Order: sequence, then structure tokens, then C-alpha cells
Amino acid sequence: MITVGYCCNFIDNIKTTLNEYNEFGYDYILAPLIHPKCSEFIPFSEVFLAGKDRNKVVMNIPKRNFRFRQNVRLLEKELNFAGHAGIQNIILECPDDHESIENMAMIIHRKLNPQSETNDHHNLAIAIKLSMANNKNQAQELRKDPQDIDVDYEWKKWNHLRKIMQFHPNISIALEVNGELSDSDRLNRWLGEPIKFIILPTSVFITNSSKFPVLSKVMQSFMGQVNFKMAGNFSIIIKGNNLHGHIKHYCQYIAHLQKTELFSDRLQKFCQYYEDLLQYPLQPLKDDLDSSVYEVFETDLIKYQQYEKAIRKALADIQKDVIIAMVVGAGRGPLVDKALKAAHAVGKFIRIYAVEKNTNAVITLEMLRELKWGGYLGLPHGYVEIVSCDMRCWSAPERADIIISELLGSFGDNELSPECLDGVWNYVNQDAICIPQSYSSYLCPVQSQRLYAQLSLDKRSNINAYEYAYVVHIRNAYFIDKPKKVFTFEHRRGDLHRPPSTRDNNRKKRLTFRSKIPAICHGFVGYFDCCLYGDIRLSIVPSTQNSDMYSWFPIYFPVQTPFDINDGHDDNDQIEIQITRNVNDLHVWYEWTISRPIQSRIHNLNGKHYSISLH
Amino acid sequence: MITVGYCCNFIDNIKTTLNEYNEFGYDYILAPLIHPKCSEFIPFSEVFLAGKDRNKVVMNIPKRNFRFRQNVRLLEKELNFAGHAGIQNIILECPDDHESIENMAMIIHRKLNPQSETNDHHNLAIAIKLSMANNKNQAQELRKDPQDIDVDYEWKKWNHLRKIMQFHPNISIALEVNGELSDSDRLNRWLGEPIKFIILPTSVFITNSSKFPVLSKVMQSFMGQVNFKMAGNFSIIIKGNNLHGHIKHYCQYIAHLQKTELFSDRLQKFCQYYEDLLQYPLQPLKDDLDSSVYEVFETDLIKYQQYEKAIRKALADIQKDVIIAMVVGAGRGPLVDKALKAAHAVGKFIRIYAVEKNTNAVITLEMLRELKWGGYLGLPHGYVEIVSCDMRCWSAPERADIIISELLGSFGDNELSPECLDGVWNYVNQDAICIPQSYSSYLCPVQSQRLYAQLSLDKRSNINAYEYAYVVHIRNAYFIDKPKKVFTFEHRRGDLHRPPSTRDNNRKKRLTFRSKIPAICHGFVGYFDCCLYGDIRLSIVPSTQNSDMYSWFPIYFPVQTPFDINDGHDDNDQIEIQITRNVNDLHVWYEWTISRPIQSRIHNLNGKHYSISLH
Repeated sequence: MITVGYCCNFIDNIKTTLNEYNEFGYDYILAPLIHPKCSEFIPFSEVFLAGKDRNKVVMNIPKRNFRFRQNVRLLEKELNFAGHAGIQNIILECPDDHESIENMAMIIHRKLNPQSETNDHHNLAIAIKLSMANNKNQAQELRKDPQDIDVDYEWKKWNHLRKIMQFHPNISIALEVNGELSDSDRLNRWLGEPIKFIILPTSVFITNSSKFPVLSKVMQSFMGQVNFKMAGNFSIIIKGNNLHGHIKHYCQYIAHLQKTELFSDRLQKFCQYYEDLLQYPLQPLKDDLDSSVYEVFETDLIKYQQYEKAIRKALADIQKDVIIAMVVGAGRGPLVDKALKAAHAVGKFIRIYAVEKNTNAVITLEMLRELKWGGYLGLPHGYVEIVSCDMRCWSAPERADIIISELLGSFGDNELSPECLDGVWNYVNQDAICIPQSYSSYLCPVQSQRLYAQLSLDKRSNINAYEYAYVVHIRNAYFIDKPKKVFTFEHRRGDLHRPPSTRDNNRKKRLTFRSKIPAICHGFVGYFDCCLYGDIRLSIVPSTQNSDMYSWFPIYFPVQTPFDINDGHDDNDQIEIQITRNVNDLHVWYEWTISRPIQSRIHNLNGKHYSISLH
Repeated sequence: MITVGYCCNFIDNIKTTLNEYNEFGYDYILAPLIHPKCSEFIPFSEVFLAGKDRNKVVMNIPKRNFRFRQNVRLLEKELNFAGHAGIQNIILECPDDHESIENMAMIIHRKLNPQSETNDHHNLAIAIKLSMANNKNQAQELRKDPQDIDVDYEWKKWNHLRKIMQFHPNISIALEVNGELSDSDRLNRWLGEPIKFIILPTSVFITNSSKFPVLSKVMQSFMGQVNFKMAGNFSIIIKGNNLHGHIKHYCQYIAHLQKTELFSDRLQKFCQYYEDLLQYPLQPLKDDLDSSVYEVFETDLIKYQQYEKAIRKALADIQKDVIIAMVVGAGRGPLVDKALKAAHAVGKFIRIYAVEKNTNAVITLEMLRELKWGGYLGLPHGYVEIVSCDMRCWSAPERADIIISELLGSFGDNELSPECLDGVWNYVNQDAICIPQSYSSYLCPVQSQRLYAQLSLDKRSNINAYEYAYVVHIRNAYFIDKPKKVFTFEHRRGDLHRPPSTRDNNRKKRLTFRSKIPAICHGFVGYFDCCLYGDIRLSIVPSTQNSDMYSWFPIYFPVQTPFDINDGHDDNDQIEIQITRNVNDLHVWYEWTISRPIQSRIHNLNGKHYSISLH
């Protein structure tokens, strides 16, 4: 459930006010902690707040000119007091001029990075208040002609601030929304930022036929998008005078809105709590997969439906009645099941060798053979043999007509499908079919403080978290440009029996991207698509992805230093990246280097940080 | 609630068996994962266990001779399979001979310390099964004369094993209990070990008048002690044939037992979840305390009752009708309250200066002065003045008759009460009274794997966790000897006005301890006691502690390398420690060195790791 708070302009008695709004249905109040009549710092003493009520007060710090030393001092006192009183959440309005932003950022940054390691109990979360469209304020403040207004000014203030604070994970945005929701690129850029609070003035509500406050369709849809992009991790604050009967109606409407279709998410069941969480990619060659990992993968209906269709087509194309199939990397047997079903469907007999190197999974395969696949007698349409062996070392008793595997990772070849399938060459027929037939990886530049901020928390020794790749169910991000194709691997019919020495799995690719609006690039997101057989495909590339398939999350390649990108037409208004795939006897690894608009280091040089083991 | 499992000798169908015992009221089953008819490794496939049932199976590995290579291989396979299947808990029976113990420990230790940092999802918890009295087995196994039986043999096996595994936090004990519970020292030593499971054979139950199984009074009391020492974090396993009507009655009895007085804990409300949790000591001079910390301390009724009594006695002893009192380090004012009450009780007028350096707490003091202490008019029996200042720098307007403070830490002087009170000398009368009058610290040697194992998880950079001190609510520990007095500080009437240059707060003490039974020493536990005034005392030393007082947990000084201690009478059968208190302009720190039975390093030399800041 999304919580709803109310923004109080001033507070006479904090306990009474909190109780009042709690009764109206609000979860918390946003309140200034400085008495409105006093310029002095006289906060309401925390002794009037019971421990359980501490998290029901968000401290509101209004916009100030931090070029004045006394305002900086006041801010320090307010932050200290919040820590002292156990008030964890603070909303701090962003000033307009650069010097104020810098002074403010310095104070916050100092507070979030205390010198002493033992004294880190002040775990403040600070949201910077910004207006989605601040044009009028901007014109007033800077006495500019409205013609000169920079529509990106408010976002640029934030971008400036968070760069000073090195994208600290405790910094987020409190975004005040007005009625104007026209420019979709700029809207999407906001949605790629870590929004913790959406502030809704009562004036953006319209009145329905029953005189109750509601949001327009456009605004409803926007709120649904915020919910999706933040994976439900945000809160709504109502602000301003009651314009619709009773102040509680706003809160009731938000409760109602959350129950609508706009706030639902079909894949949530499988992916919840994984949103924007960086995970280390699997290394299936080096580490045996756990049962729970197999279990999750096996539940992906769409993926295996596609496999079954592809196998059926391929079996029909093989001009034999008895077909020798090898499922290489059989796991706990889902592709064996699908191959048996496909043979039954096309009326052929299939002899399947299920080859698996994980001895724990082999136990399950043997059990399934007994219980489901007819044991040593077999089924009318097929017979299964279990082979406990690495596919690259197996001395097969006969040659295969078809090789079936599921060795693809989020970036296609990153779980070493090419190297594994190189190992089957001496036990296949000349015209053997390979499922999958080919696969390609894709990359696009991404802006996402949420992803990047997690890297600073990575505690692995000897590994630079910024030169590693991560599997992640991305939500809170802005995609700066469309994905472009990177590496392709093909296993064509008639090619499979050629020895590995005739192939080269090293790759190199240079790509360029542009941005429609000013943005900051925190790295690159990778995807893959794949031709299983004929026109049967698997894809996680957004434009072509199979819907409801959740076996693969995208991959994230960070950059050490995020860089700004402009919307102009110079060479330096484009992003240029070179990525290589490198193979030696022990490992495969990627290296990535940005050459525009800035020149970066070669990330992961020699696979020092992230390499995929061949053994 | 303490969970209860049932130990199954063999399993035909794991799902059916689990369901059956779930229906009887058992939370989980303990089961061998190797089919009893097969010497081969054919575990029940995890595919028959739904995800939610994985934690309802504990894997049982029987006693084996690990001098044989095939048994070592089998163990490796079982542990791999447990990781694969997502079975987290394993009970592994401890073999009897040293070589087997060493081989077994090596395999487990390797499993718990995987080479690759990314692959730490095998978070196995391994409990070593031991019998509380294993005399018969021991005699049989080693073909010894029963006369030669070493009553410590079973504990020594465990001690050997855990030392090889460097006291790994994932290793615990599954202790099988028989009827013999006579030797209280040895019982207490078991209770100081990390017991995760208590295994109760059905044969230890007796039959009550309604024919139901119950435990003897002695056994009930023992189970209550286990519950206390493990802070409720353990589980009970019923083992053996049904001897009392129905197997579910054992489980029902345990549920009943948990509701009795034996399992209750009066202080739990305040201390729950803090049991055996190492915390860094507060540094109140360097860091301002948070409101929540004040709040917790203020709720300790016993402590402030003692203070009120002491102040009353002292005020009565001062031959004046108007008394000048200074509460130095007033915090949020609890001692100001008590001083006003005491003055009222003895019919005198008190003028209180409440001196506090934490400006956030001063806000509350000023508010309390307005609301509760009569503001600038004062109360009939007293007047309060708030002073926002460090007591060591204050230029007081007059001289005090009484100085009241609460500056003591778990080890007495460790929050620098001596140095702070040195600062009051130039604003006290010649015969001023100090509350507290004196305080002493105490130390005793402790065996506690639970405390020591946490040190390996400490991730602070530049600090050796083994040369630091921790505040901890100790439960799961065995106290090897009684506490002995370490350092004493006195603030006697008539002494307070002497300048600090006449005092020396450096200290040095050498202490010796003995053990009644073989044990291993993981460090030292510190306490303090204190004379507030006259016969009014505060103490956390176990033999003299004020009951129901919870403001202070003991302090733990670890040793880098735990050492065994015997129960003999040689010089080397005693523990000798030297501890020093050292002061310079910036810091105070302790150094501790063991000279018997082993010679240790000087822990915390020059205060490199743990020092208490004076500023």
C-alpha cells in the first residue's frame, strides 16, 4: 500500500495535529520543525512524540538562500535535531542558485558521511523537493524573460546537486506535480529518478459529479506510471487548502485509485522485491545451480511453450522416423519433457540423451526417468538416457540429429553458450539442427541513479563494483536511446560438426547513441534476442520481447564516472562505446570503454573484475 | 515460540511423513537423506518438497568413521545436496576419534568458507550432535575401563572441532539429553555453548497420573535454563518410540511447558533481541546522545529510585536550608526531577544548575523548565537554571554544595566519569558532596563462542575487532571464575575542590583466576558497582546487582586467540591478566594482556583500536 501524508504549513501542537490527520486517514504529516513565529531555532521538542509516532512525522525544510551563513547554520541544526529526535525522513526544498545548491549539498553530504564508523546511527533519508514545471518561479527568481526559460532547469538543479553528493543512496526526490504533463521525454526522465514522494496540490484535483475530488485521466495514468517505475516504493503528499468538502476526501481518493487496474502489475508475483536490485550473474559452468534456481526457471510457461514449438518444427524438418536428440545441460529435465511432447505431436520416435554435469540435478533426472519417462523400457514415442557428464567432455555412443540447449544469459552469450556448443561438434551428424539457431546481444545507454547508487554499497574485496556486470529487473531508469545490436552467434544446420578451431568467439563492437534531452548516463543496459528455430523466437529486447516471460532480467554494465549528455548535434553530443568479448583458456570476459562524450578508462581490463569461468 | 521437531529413523515418502508429523503438531522433521536400504548416495529428490516445506526438513547425518575416504566423500555429497535442495539445517553426529573429527571439521569448514565471494548462497547451518553424558559409548568405542572414563570427553570433542573451525558462527550444538543432570559446573559449561537443538529421547519422559508424558522437575528446570541461556533461540527434537499413548503428546507437553513460569523472563520486555548482541560502547563526550537513547535510560525506575534516595540522604546531611546543586550532564532532566523531589521530601530549598553540553537535549530541558519546573519563578522547594555548556568549561556564578551526575558506563569509569568530574573542582565548596561517591570495575574470564564468533563478522576498516570492547547483554556464556575488582575511583567529600593536577586517573591491575573444570577462555566480562551516597548503591556485578535494573549491560573484552584452561593446580592452570587504564590529552583507553596460561599480545596497544575520546 502506498502511504499518504498531509503537508501542514505550521503546527501549533504536533501531537494534536498528528492525531487529527491520522483520524482523517493520513498516514503521516509533513511539518516544519521550526516555530513559524520565530526566526530562532525553536523546534517542537521530540518529547511530545511517542516512539511509535516518530516515523509519522516528516520534517519539512523550506527553500532558503544558502549563500547566507546563518541559513547554513540553521540547516545544520535542523539535521542534527532530526537525528537526535529520531525523525528519519526530511524533505528539503531545492534552492535556485548554484551557490546555494552547492552549500546545501555540502552540509547534507557531510551529515550522510560521518567521520566515525561507530556513529552511523543517524540514518537520515533526505528527499529534495522539486517542481515538475518550475517555469514561473524560475522567471521570477532570475528575472528572466519567459522566452529564455530553460525547460530543463529544475532537473538540472537536481542533477547538479546529486553529482556533488556522488549519487548517495539516501538522497531522493519529492516531486511536486502540477497539471502540465505534456512532454513525454521529460516526464520519462523524471520517472527514471529516485522519486520517494509525489506532492499533489489540492488544486490539481478536479470535481466529479458527486462533488468529490478526483484526478484527471492523464494524471491518473501518470500516477500509475510512477507506481510502476518506483515499484510501489513511494508515498503521496497532499498539499494545500481543502477545496472539495473535506480534507479527508483526497486521502480516500488515493486509497481508491490504488485499487484500480492502473496500479496492477501482472508479473509482480514473480518479480516483486527484485525491482532494481543488482544481482551477480550466475556462473553455471563454475557453480552448480541450486534446486530453487531450477524451480524458478521451470515455471516460465512462455519460454517452454516457445521451445516446444521450435522442437516440433525441427523434428518435422528432420527426414527420419527415429531421431537422436541430445539435450545438453538438461538441468532437472524441462526440455526433455518438451522434446518428448513434440515427438508425440509429430508422430516420431525420439531417443533423448539428457546430458547434465550437476550431479545433484542428475539425481532428479534419474528419478523423473523412472516415474515419468518410462524407465529403461521407455515410452511409446521416446526413450530417455541420463548422462552425468559435462557436454564438452562426453564420448557419445552415437551422433545426434538435433542438439537442444538452454544456455543463454541476459546478454545472450554471457553464460558461454558459444563455448559449450563448440563442445558438441564430434557427436553430431553433418546436417544436425541446433536449437537455438542464433542469438544476439543488445545495448542501450541508461540514466538510473537507483542502480548506480547501489554500487557504492558493494563490499567485495579486490573487485571494483563499477567494472562488473549485474543482472537486474530494471524499473526506476530512463533509457536515453533505443537498444542497438552488439554480438551475434550462429549455430546453423550443417555448421555444427565443424571443429571449434574453425571458429572465433572473440568479438568487438563500436556503437553510438544520442539523447533527445539533456541526461546523465550511468551505464548501459543489455538484452538479448534469439532465434530458437525458424520463426520461433525468444526476446527480452523491449521492442520485441515475449510478453509474460520472466526467465531473464536485463544486464547492467555501469560506468565508473557517470557523464552528462546533451541534446545537440555535435560529435560530443553523442555517446560512443566500444565493447569487446574476450576468450582465453580459462575465462570469457567483456571490456567496455566510452570514447564520447568523455573518454573513460577501459572497464574490466583483462577481466580483472568480472570474468566468466570456463571450468 | 520454541519449535518442536521429530527425529525419524528412516523415511519412505518424505512428503507423507512430513504431513503426518505436521498434523501431530510438530513443526519439522529430522530425517536422514540417504535411503536406509542403500549404501549408495540416493537421497530423496528435493522435487517432492515444495519451497515452503524446505525449512521443515532438517538433514540428519549419522555418526561415521571419517578415517575412511568413502565416508568423507559421502559427507561432501550430502552437504552439496543440502545446498542444492535448499535444506539449510543439518545435524551431524560427532565421531569419537580425533582423526575423524579433524577430517569432518575440514570438510565442513571448506563448505562454509567458499573460495568465491559471489557464490555464498549456500548458507548452511550445521549443528554437531553430542550427548550430554556419553560415558557408555565412550567406553565401548575406545574399549576403555569404565574407571578411566573422562567425564569431559564429549565436551572436549566439541572443543577440538570448533577450534579447527575457528569458532565459525554457523556451527552450533544439537545436544542429546539423558536423565543425569547432576554436575552443575559441567551443565553450566554446556549452557554456555551455542545450543541450537535439544534432543529429548522419549525415554526421559515420565508418566503423570493422567498417563501423559511429562518431564521431571529437574529436567523442567534444566529446559528453563536452556531457554534463558539461549534467549529462546533453540528448538526441541523428540526422538525414539512412542511410550506414552500417542507421539503427539510429547509435542503437546512441550507447548504446555513453554507457558509455565520456568520459561518467563521479567526483563525481556526491555532487553529482548539484545541478548548476546555485541554493541559498540557509547562515546557520550564525542557524540551527542540521541533522544531515543535518553528515552530508554529514563525508563529505568530502579536506578532513579536509588538516585532519589541518595540525594535525599545527602541533602539531609548538608547543614543548610538553601542548597546549591549542580546536575552535570543533565541530559533530558531525570536527575533534576529527582533532586527537586528529594528537596521537597527533606523540606529544603534547592537551587539547581542543570548543565548539559548536548544542545538538542537543552531544548527539552528548557521546555521542561517552563512546563514542569516553574519557569523563571521556580517552585516552592526549588529553582532550576539551564546551562548549555560542557561541565569542564563552565564559569559558574557560584559554588555548589552538591554535584550530581550519571556518567558511569558498564565498566564504571569507561565513559570518563573521572575526567568529567575533575572539571568541576573550581565551582564547588570545600566540603561539597559528590553523587556518586565512588565506583569500581570488575572482570571475570568467560567462555562464549556466541560472543567471540561475532567478531569475525565485524567489517570495520582499520579496527581489529578482537582489540575492541563491546557492551553486551550476555546470556549464552559460561563464567569460568568469579569477578574480581579492577579499578576504583573515589570522589570523597572534601576532596572535590582539589585541582585535577593532584589526581592521576591512570590505573594498572593484575588479576588471576582459576577454573573448576576444563574450559576455553574467549575473553573477559566487565561490570561495575558504585556507591551513590552512604549505603545507597548501584551494581551490575552478578553477586550484588540491583534486580530489575537494566540501564547497563556488561562489557566484553575479547582475546585475539582463545585459550584452553585446565582444572589443575599448576601455575599454568590459572589465568593471569593485566589491564591498564591510560590517559593522554585526547583519549582514555584500556590495554589488556594475558600472561597465563599463554602469553598474548598487548591488546589495544596505545589505544590503536578502541579509545574513548575526551573531546
